[in-house]
Amino acid sequence: MATLPLLSDADLTPEARAVFDDIRATRGSDFINNFWRALAHDPALLAATWDRLKVVMGPGTLDPLVKEMLYIAVSVTNGCSYCVHSHTAAARAKGMTDAQHTEMLAVIAMAAQTNALATATQVPVDAAFDAGAPT
Amino acid sequence: MATLPLLSDADLTPEARAVFDDIRATRGSDFINNFWRALAHDPALLAATWDRLKVVMGPGTLDPLVKEMLYIAVSVTNGCSYCVHSHTAAARAKGMTDAQHTEMLAVIAMAAQTNALATATQVPVDAAFDAGAPT
Amino acid sequence: MATLPLLSDADLTPEARAVFDDIRATRGSDFINNFWRALAHDPALLAATWDRLKVVMGPGTLDPLVKEMLYIAVSVTNGCSYCVHSHTAAARAKGMTDAQHTEMLAVIAMAAQTNALATATQVPVDAAFDAGAPT
Amino acid sequence: MATLPLLSDADLTPEARAVFDDIRATRGSDFINNFWRALAHDPALLAATWDRLKVVMGPGTLDPLVKEMLYIAVSVTNGCSYCVHSHTAAARAKGMTDAQHTEMLAVIAMAAQTNALATATQVPVDAAFDAGAPT
Amino acid sequence: MATLPLLSDADLTPEARAVFDDIRATRGSDFINNFWRALAHDPALLAATWDRLKVVMGPGTLDPLVKEMLYIAVSVTNGCSYCVHSHTAAARAKGMTDAQHTEMLAVIAMAAQTNALATATQVPVDAAFDAGAPT
Amino acid sequence: MATLPLLSDADLTPEARAVFDDIRATRGSDFINNFWRALAHDPALLAATWDRLKVVMGPGTLDPLVKEMLYIAVSVTNGCSYCVHSHTAAARAKGMTDAQHTEMLAVIAMAAQTNALATATQVPVDAAFDAGAPT
Repeated sequence: MATLPLLSDADLTPEARAVFDDIRATRGSDFINNFWRALAHDPALLAATWDRLKVVMGPGTLDPLVKEMLYIAVSVTNGCSYCVHSHTAAARAKGMTDAQHTEMLAVIAMAAQTNALATATQVPVDAAFDAGAPT
Repeated sequence: MATLPLLSDADLTPEARAVFDDIRATRGSDFINNFWRALAHDPALLAATWDRLKVVMGPGTLDPLVKEMLYIAVSVTNGCSYCVHSHTAAARAKGMTDAQHTEMLAVIAMAAQTNALATATQVPVDAAFDAGAPT
Repeated sequence: MATLPLLSDADLTPEARAVFDDIRATRGSDFINNFWRALAHDPALLAATWDRLKVVMGPGTLDPLVKEMLYIAVSVTNGCSYCVHSHTAAARAKGMTDAQHTEMLAVIAMAAQTNALATATQVPVDAAFDAGAPT
Repeated sequence: MATLPLLSDADLTPEARAVFDDIRATRGSDFINNFWRALAHDPALLAATWDRLKVVMGPGTLDPLVKEMLYIAVSVTNGCSYCVHSHTAAARAKGMTDAQHTEMLAVIAMAAQTNALATATQVPVDAAFDAGAPT
Repeated sequence: MATLPLLSDADLTPEARAVFDDIRATRGSDFINNFWRALAHDPALLAATWDRLKVVMGPGTLDPLVKEMLYIAVSVTNGCSYCVHSHTAAARAKGMTDAQHTEMLAVIAMAAQTNALATATQVPVDAAFDAGAPT
Repeated sequence: MATLPLLSDADLTPEARAVFDDIRATRGSDFINNFWRALAHDPALLAATWDRLKVVMGPGTLDPLVKEMLYIAVSVTNGCSYCVHSHTAAARAKGMTDAQHTEMLAVIAMAAQTNALATATQVPVDAAFDAGAPT
């Protein structure tokens, strides 16, 4: 089930097809996952999302695998089933080992736990943690 | 404000004091942040939380700074103000640069955005992402 | 799967049946969706929920379609799969066009993104935004 | 700061005043907390919220203190600072002991942790847990 | 408190200054809120966020006020205090009346409530709601 | 679908087998649900999670059924489908009646609703609720 039909390649507008072409070229794979097939209904939204994703997940100061793990951490916390699946697969493809996978799970679970405790106790932020004084 | 008084060192039970001693020794610092001062009301909860945190955030297959960034990603998504502050400070202390900091923010923001789109479109998980067939 | 059996019309108490009758009359349709068939186990909860929904989503200062879109925005953010499906269908039934649908998705995604950035940076609320001075 | 001014008693419409009177009579206290002073801008919303709260938190099959603790669990998970404070105070007023308080925190933290693990692993629901076959 | 210092106009790089100039021109106001002063640490992130926001919140098929209300609905559900404040102020500036404000609150609250009920009962999505059959 | 294969009994390491043995002995049942079969990939994570769960959900000052209901409240709010199913089944096994079940749903729904209102109005915490003055 979905709230929008998933578009096949034959249904694409030229603008959407250009984005699919770029996804395929960037990833070196013909496979286009369902997420993009839903967004393809709005080529401008599709293009804006893909273009930004390519920049954000592209070369920078953080390792590509670290970025995928950050993505998983957010997706788990948001309870996004699709995203947990797709980014765990992506992290695997980028070399995440079994040991790194379960160690990441332990960190995410620990954070969820202490988040709950900090929120439940409503402890004030220590002054030592402030980095935000106006310059 | 908090839902539990924050305990000063003079208020601790011997069991809680032992945990504070271990926090200080492990971190090489006298500073005990408010989170632990609230949990100190229940020495068993304090000890269980700290002991597990020490294992989870200790040596393993992931870099300590990566673990702090995963912690931040979860805390941001849960909206835990205290945790965002404390783990951003911890990541800074472990060497997170300005560029890594803002690159991490961009990844977290991107994930929040595509999480929302995947949830709003309710696209089915692609079969290619399944890693869970029973063995 | 569900945590409560879904009640068929034959299983209803008179109080629950009266609510189903009102749902059908209000909507001008015989179809009762699964949500109400689960709540029907507790006729008082069913009645309270439906009665309030009818008022809140009924005539007022906001357009009915706008209300459905607000409902979708909350449901997406809460990750409620059932609710995203049912209220997207309701918004479609109230005239939401394809273009409005994807434009709404873009707004929801943008909000998710800047929410994450504001939470991650923990910026203080500008004094200019305060509307809450006691009268 | 707030997004609506908090109304003093002198600012109330007669309908809002009647709700405040009922809150005071029900609680046996003159104190009206800020939540109601914000809702008082819309007497119909104020009345609907209070009337429903009085029913839901009133006599039933669950102990009043258990209901407050459930309320805290939801509020912590939603990250609602105001609600965590107000319902922790309410639970205290209904007799929650220090030991019950911290034991509740441990349960909430445990749930947050295993929620994260279940979501991260995306394990399918066991057939044994299904209670929802249509009757 | 914040996790990044807020930059004053004097601290900006030329790229960040250009974004601030565009914010001021677009809004017809000299006021730059704290959100942008934090993002200004990373001019590329600042520019990407502002450029996309300008498009998404700009002219389209939805009324600008409706877009602000959708933004508020997401921000409330995410528990983003800063965002609730800033977008409520923006909605006010775009003409949201008191009656529209509290009616929106009632819809958001209703959605939160039925989201919880649908998630707690785990009712399956009705086949009638499916819009996602592949074309 | 899952992000990790579910391990059968034949796949377990001795350490994981010992945990499964303890789960079976503690619960007086041969049934091991999928959650543990996923965690079994990392015997240390499996053991730490189970050992802590046994303590937290074991004897204390709160009734075992109350603890399961708190667990449900958190799981619903986090939108964890697996957890809602498993802990509702557990609460049923511990004697939760139909009336208690739906009364709990009403409390959870009420909390979700007023959480949204408190967050949307951003009312300041009343001084009367503060329990956190340093001792």
